[in-house]
Amino acid sequence: MKARTIENVNVIGVATTRPGEHWKMSLENMAVEVSTQAARDADISLHSVDSLYVGNMLAGILGEQSNLGAAMAGCLGLDIPAYSVEGGCASGGLALCAAIKDVISGASETALVLGVEKMTDWPVLNVTKALMTAGSEEEQLAGATQPGLFALLARRHMEEFGTTSDQLASASVNAHHNAMLNPKAQFHRELTIEQVRKSYLVADPLHALDCSPIGDGAAAVIITGRNLSDRNRGVRVLASSVSSDCPGLGQRKSLTELRATRMSAQNAYEQAGIGPGDIDVAEVDDCFTISHLLAVEDLGFRKKGEAAHAISTVINSSGGLKAGGNPVGAVGVYQVAEITTQLRGEAGSRQVSRRRFGLTHDVSGTGVISVVHIFGKE
Amino acid sequence: MKARTIENVNVIGVATTRPGEHWKMSLENMAVEVSTQAARDADISLHSVDSLYVGNMLAGILGEQSNLGAAMAGCLGLDIPAYSVEGGCASGGLALCAAIKDVISGASETALVLGVEKMTDWPVLNVTKALMTAGSEEEQLAGATQPGLFALLARRHMEEFGTTSDQLASASVNAHHNAMLNPKAQFHRELTIEQVRKSYLVADPLHALDCSPIGDGAAAVIITGRNLSDRNRGVRVLASSVSSDCPGLGQRKSLTELRATRMSAQNAYEQAGIGPGDIDVAEVDDCFTISHLLAVEDLGFRKKGEAAHAISTVINSSGGLKAGGNPVGAVGVYQVAEITTQLRGEAGSRQVSRRRFGLTHDVSGTGVISVVHIFGKE
Repeated sequence: MKARTIENVNVIGVATTRPGEHWKMSLENMAVEVSTQAARDADISLHSVDSLYVGNMLAGILGEQSNLGAAMAGCLGLDIPAYSVEGGCASGGLALCAAIKDVISGASETALVLGVEKMTDWPVLNVTKALMTAGSEEEQLAGATQPGLFALLARRHMEEFGTTSDQLASASVNAHHNAMLNPKAQFHRELTIEQVRKSYLVADPLHALDCSPIGDGAAAVIITGRNLSDRNRGVRVLASSVSSDCPGLGQRKSLTELRATRMSAQNAYEQAGIGPGDIDVAEVDDCFTISHLLAVEDLGFRKKGEAAHAISTVINSSGGLKAGGNPVGAVGVYQVAEITTQLRGEAGSRQVSRRRFGLTHDVSGTGVISVVHIFGKE
Repeated sequence: MKARTIENVNVIGVATTRPGEHWKMSLENMAVEVSTQAARDADISLHSVDSLYVGNMLAGILGEQSNLGAAMAGCLGLDIPAYSVEGGCASGGLALCAAIKDVISGASETALVLGVEKMTDWPVLNVTKALMTAGSEEEQLAGATQPGLFALLARRHMEEFGTTSDQLASASVNAHHNAMLNPKAQFHRELTIEQVRKSYLVADPLHALDCSPIGDGAAAVIITGRNLSDRNRGVRVLASSVSSDCPGLGQRKSLTELRATRMSAQNAYEQAGIGPGDIDVAEVDDCFTISHLLAVEDLGFRKKGEAAHAISTVINSSGGLKAGGNPVGAVGVYQVAEITTQLRGEAGSRQVSRRRFGLTHDVSGTGVISVVHIFGKE
């Protein structure tokens, strides 16, 4: 399929809950909080929304609540078409993709995209196991974990390109540094490379501080196809792209690139009619430090093997998944909230200076699905 | 939102697996079987499909495999955009809705919609519990089951309209009668009202034979937005509509109608520009016999309280969920396969005589979500 231009879809409202251990908040509580705030941010009534798309990965598996579209619509007091879209950790980005198609199709004028996840109410081992359901059955049965699989990718990157543990650790240090300026980040604590290296080894070469945390959280984004009377705060969707790859690493041709990321990025750049050099600010999937490096390369910001070098695009001003937080199925929606805030010029002390084009990149497992969106401020 | 006409989306290929206890077939096996057959039926290569939408409810909860979009794309050897859409038992219909929007938006020209479900590999109590996750948390915690909730609806219908156990049983008898002519139906066994009434009581007034079975199964439907060179076998999508309702029965204004069904049907008729009297053949959700009666009324085929009377529309020529089979998240796709087969005039011994307009009706839980599609043969 040829890449198609998206004509008139704008993000008009965003809101997030600070990710963390929200033992006193249910999925419903968080959903109501961010949906109400996003509607206020968009200056519309929540009841004027035509459809709801919920991105969530774990509620059915861990929480015994499926059909989240209807469940969330119910707690919001809406009886609109309600979809639950799931694609592992990329569920949030995928929900936005489906909502954008709904708006382009004309079925909905305005859609609410809600990413919501509870991860801290269950034993960590259950969560670790649940997170593996997004990938290949073979890897699950072999007892692999996400850190274990990403450690393989890191090892291969080190082997082929001479990437060092310090370069990996730098990604984490930068994420924590950026998060200091984001009041909604899960962690507010500077790190040093030394601290990352001295943290316990989870899966060689990945240390605990190479890994993103688990967390509860919700984010909401409202998009619309109507013409905006006040264009000041609307942020235009320029591209929406998904690619999938074979779930198991054993079937992949390369372990040093995530093909789904490269393909979805390529298609997104074609849709938007711009290149990676045009992106001023990007929120990329850094569930592990190696993921950050792969993202920088596969999104085209740097050549393969050069991710550790400086680039002009600001990456993960929010603190990313590593320090901002990683409520898995909600992450893709959090990313859009950050990019919208940046492109509007409302990011306060962490505001980037150039703010014409922004990009979000949401990945499931080891690149099983990649979702890329590009946004622009006219 | 005003109802919008769907311009040019056609179903061009369908295939189903006979529902049953497929202990030797995995989700992947069934998915490959029906997807390959649907592509052959559409006379296209599976590799020419632009996107995949998977409808499934239970794989994550029971089967420890989530991210079914990517998992199914992987086993089909496709690296296309892949979505898993979930809305409880209405997941299949909901996946079709999202796919139709994708095609209308122009992002995909041709999309594969796959409904797939495994239910018989686990203890029945686990399945019963898993099925309750689609509804309200309160009902789950109270220990309610789907038969228990539908029994309440049946009781209320009896109370208000004088509906009898025999009238309920008739729905089952008819379903089994129709299924005799469907080689892909789960059951090939005629029933009598006496047999239904003498089967053990599950939840008064519902007997075992008032309830649909569980089953494994898969169905595939291929839709396209391209202009058809051979119009003979293409079946046009005239309407695609979803409505949601509050999950708990306790919050509903009426227990004798499923509001989501009524709203989605009304919107679908507006989109198609026809009324219930124009529908020649319909596949409706009859997970319990009372569901059949509610569907006939709420879809507008009969006035409230008169569902047991004769109507001109042929209902559930496939045998419906009761006798055709009920692999929950796949049902909505099975229904489309049956209606397509009927409208093409390829239904063999169960072929309906008038075949201009067909309707499908897929419901989640006790009407938490309802999905209605209308199809036409030009």
